[in-house]
Order: sequence, then C-alpha cells, then structure tokens
Amino acid sequence: MSRFGEDQPLGVLPQGAPRPPVVVLVEPQLGENIGMVARAMGNFGWSQLRLVKPRDGWPSASASATASNSRAIVEEAQLFGAVDEAVADLSLVLVTSARKHDMVKPVIGPAEAATRACAHAGRSGAPAEGGGQPARVGYIFGREAWGLTNDEVSAGNAIVTLPVDPERASLNLAQCVLLCAYEWRLAAFRASGFDSEPTLLPVEQVDRGPVATQADLTGFYEHLEGLLAARGFFHPPEKRDRMVRNLRAIFQRGDLTAQEVRTLRGVLASLDRAHERR
Amino acid sequence: MSRFGEDQPLGVLPQGAPRPPVVVLVEPQLGENIGMVARAMGNFGWSQLRLVKPRDGWPSASASATASNSRAIVEEAQLFGAVDEAVADLSLVLVTSARKHDMVKPVIGPAEAATRACAHAGRSGAPAEGGGQPARVGYIFGREAWGLTNDEVSAGNAIVTLPVDPERASLNLAQCVLLCAYEWRLAAFRASGFDSEPTLLPVEQVDRGPVATQADLTGFYEHLEGLLAARGFFHPPEKRDRMVRNLRAIFQRGDLTAQEVRTLRGVLASLDRAHERR
Repeated sequence: MSRFGEDQPLGVLPQGAPRPPVVVLVEPQLGENIGMVARAMGNFGWSQLRLVKPRDGWPSASASATASNSRAIVEEAQLFGAVDEAVADLSLVLVTSARKHDMVKPVIGPAEAATRACAHAGRSGAPAEGGGQPARVGYIFGREAWGLTNDEVSAGNAIVTLPVDPERASLNLAQCVLLCAYEWRLAAFRASGFDSEPTLLPVEQVDRGPVATQADLTGFYEHLEGLLAARGFFHPPEKRDRMVRNLRAIFQRGDLTAQEVRTLRGVLASLDRAHERR
Repeated sequence: MSRFGEDQPLGVLPQGAPRPPVVVLVEPQLGENIGMVARAMGNFGWSQLRLVKPRDGWPSASASATASNSRAIVEEAQLFGAVDEAVADLSLVLVTSARKHDMVKPVIGPAEAATRACAHAGRSGAPAEGGGQPARVGYIFGREAWGLTNDEVSAGNAIVTLPVDPERASLNLAQCVLLCAYEWRLAAFRASGFDSEPTLLPVEQVDRGPVATQADLTGFYEHLEGLLAARGFFHPPEKRDRMVRNLRAIFQRGDLTAQEVRTLRGVLASLDRAHERR
C-alpha cells in the first residue's frame, strides 16, 4: 500500500494514475444540468465532456454559470451530431441506464464499472484508435426525460446501473455522473496502490502527541478508584473487582494520549475538590 | 451471501436491514437545496430530515418543488433551534466536513462512515435514549457557504470527509448527502448479507437462454475454419494450428448461448453466400 506524504499530497492522484474517462451526454436538455455535470466531473478529477446535440444549443450561459470552478470543462466541451461519432475513438464504452433494455449485455454497478475503466485505461489502444495511444474509456449518460434508445445502448460494452431504491429511483443527470466519477476516483487510487479512502491520513500518521503509557493509565485508574472507594461506590464489596474491570475497560482502548490522561486526572482532582467544599 | 428472488425483489432492502440514519441540515440557505437533499435521501431509502434554523423560513415551496417524488420527506421534516437539540436522541453522530477542525476526532471516509452507521443501528439504545429503542444514527451537514463551527463539529463522534479532487473540492449540499446515502445503502445490503452491488442479479441468474454446448461450438469452429481454409486464410500451413487455436480462443470463453452460436453460424452462412455471388 502506498502512502501519502511529501511526494504525494493527501487526496491527489499520483502521476501514472489511470487516465480519466470521457463523459458523453446524449441530447442533454437544460444548460444548468450540463454545468452541474461539469462540476461533478471536476470534483473527482474528470475533465473531458462531449455533448451530442444539446437541446438548447451551444454554448450555454447557464451551463457556465452552474459549473462553479469547473467552468473550463464546459468551455472545452466537444459537440457531436450522433452517439457513434462521440464514441468513435473509445475502446470501452459504459452506458448508464436505469431501464431494462432486453439485450444481452453485462449489467454492472458503478464500482465494478470504475474498476473496469481503470484496468482498461492501462491497455494500449488498437492502431485504429490512434496507433499506440492509450485505450480510452467513456461513460454515456442519456436524456434527462427518457434516457437512451436501444440503439444508443447497443453502442456500449456494458450497462451501468445505480443501486437506488426502486421506489424512488429518479436520479438527476449530474448525480448519476457524480456517483460514477466518485467510484472511478476510488478505483483510480486503488489501481495506483493507495487505500480506497484516499483523503484520509492513516491513523498512525495523525500526530495527536505521545500516547499514554500503561503507567499513566494505572495512575489514573488508581486515582479514580480511590475517589470512588472513598464515596462507597464499590458496593457490595464482592462486586468490586468486576466493577473495576468494567470501569477500566472504558479507558483501556489503546488510544488515549498522555495529555488526555493528564486532563482526566485534572478532572478527577477538580471533582474531588468540589466534593470537599460541599 | 443472500440472494434476490421472489421473497426479496432486486434492489429492495430486506426486512431487518439497519434503520436508516437521520439527516440534520444546519442553517440550510436555499429551499431548493433542501428539496434536492430530500430527493437524494429518497433515492437511497432515507426518510428522516431535521432542519436547524433554515435561513429562509419553513415551510418552503421551493423545497417541495425540487424534492421530486420525495416531497413527503420535506413535508415531514422536523425543525430545531440548535444542533444539540437536533441530535439529542442520537447515539452516533457523523459530521461531514471538508475543513480541518484541529480537533482530535477520527476522520473517516463515507464508506467507513456507512459501515459504522449500519453496525451501530443494530445496537440497543441506552435508557436515556428511550429505553430499549434501537440506537439511532445521524449525519450532520453544514451550511452551503461555510459549513460548521468548531462547536457544532464537536457534537459529532467522527468527521466524514469526501474523496474529492483537492483543487475542485466544492460539492453542493445535496451531493454530499447523496454520496453518504449511497454508501449507506451499499453497507446496509452488506450488513444484511447481500452483495455490495445490490441492483444486480448474480450472473448465473440472468436468463439468457441455454448455454452453447461444446458440440455447438465445435460445429461453429469447423464451419468457420472450413470457410477460411477454402479462402487460403491459413498460410503458411505450418502456422495453421496456432492460428486455429487463437481464433477458437476468441469464442471459447464459456458464455456463448446456443442461440448466439446459431446466430454466428447464420452469419458465416450469409458471408459465404455473398462470396459465391461475387
């Protein structure tokens, strides 16, 4: 497992990570949705957007407005007249669809799709794809209102379906892209030898200060138990041992720091003084 | 591993699955965003929404309008005056945050958060939580513009951070909820003994019709190779065996159906006739 550190800032994909897929939107209706798609792509490191006949024309001011800091993705989007032109240079095409299309094509979830996308992007392309260029992957997303035709779905190598509640299955376009891109980013980190939750420092790298020794803890336990014994807490006496064990188990988890134990002892001392004042 | 079937429709959480978490939105600004949050919750089977001081008042027509078929979640949302009131009956509180809060609290990803949420929801609650009621889990999401205060974050048991590209980290509110709810649904299926991509039939359950026998395949291979031999394809002769092996490997993957092999033979027959006509 690789580690984040000075050479590899936390959450940043390393050099040599799989090349991000292309997003193909088929006849997207609202410019606002196109902008939200671009924003979702940018969140997870995707950048190439292709549009097949956007309904309201192109360029679109509302797409630029909703793209947030991924406006460049909108501005560099490519226009196509048909799905087959938009996918011509791709060698793995993943088609998102909620409907059954009655065709014999593998149906996979977004995590499996992402794993395949990352594996495929490491292969070299056929000569027809540009002679030695890396193989390219694309995800196709259908129209907001009714998705894709059977013909358009047949352009894909696999159908990607999202695990929504069947009774409330309506995901908007940008949210479909978001989930696919999210799973891709996790898969890209895994493919690069990193943990699958890549924004997190391994726990042992978080500097919380020196951990408490067992002696620190024992000092605290004896302090606590002494105070409790003085108040008749351990009653009846034959239950004392079990009560002590249960109490110590609360703190004996191996993750208290020395400073935290000092703080706890300060708490005990403080509580004890309050008692004396009563 | 449990199976979907007549008793358990595909993609539907089984009886006894972990109880879905509560969503707490702290001072959400736009009604539209609240509606989009409800829609994202509904997509993954969440239903309880709590609002801490929504900026533009409540109820909100724009929230209802954007909630799509999750309007009931908006209508049943509960209002609170402060975060600590909104989380008072919860025993595991997961706080989403992109910022560093300089506090010693575990930082986890959405998948780990979901796994903990499902595990926790199976425990029984302390008497103070309602005497034997199941323990309840909540996710807190901050304001659109600037998230949560340190005090609000300190109400949580862990901080959840999303694996976005650090250079384009801005996720909108509904998208944060979407990713958390998506991971929760996957975790809930896993906790119930199902596969982690729960909308998919296991491959062997997809009825594609009878699989091809080896005799079907051999018939096809001999048909193909006969046609190729007649055209002088296997040249030079000493390479014939290897060429045949490589060709057969293309089809010999164990997943062709008898019907598909019949289709392929139809293709061969058709191609052969075209040749005769030339």
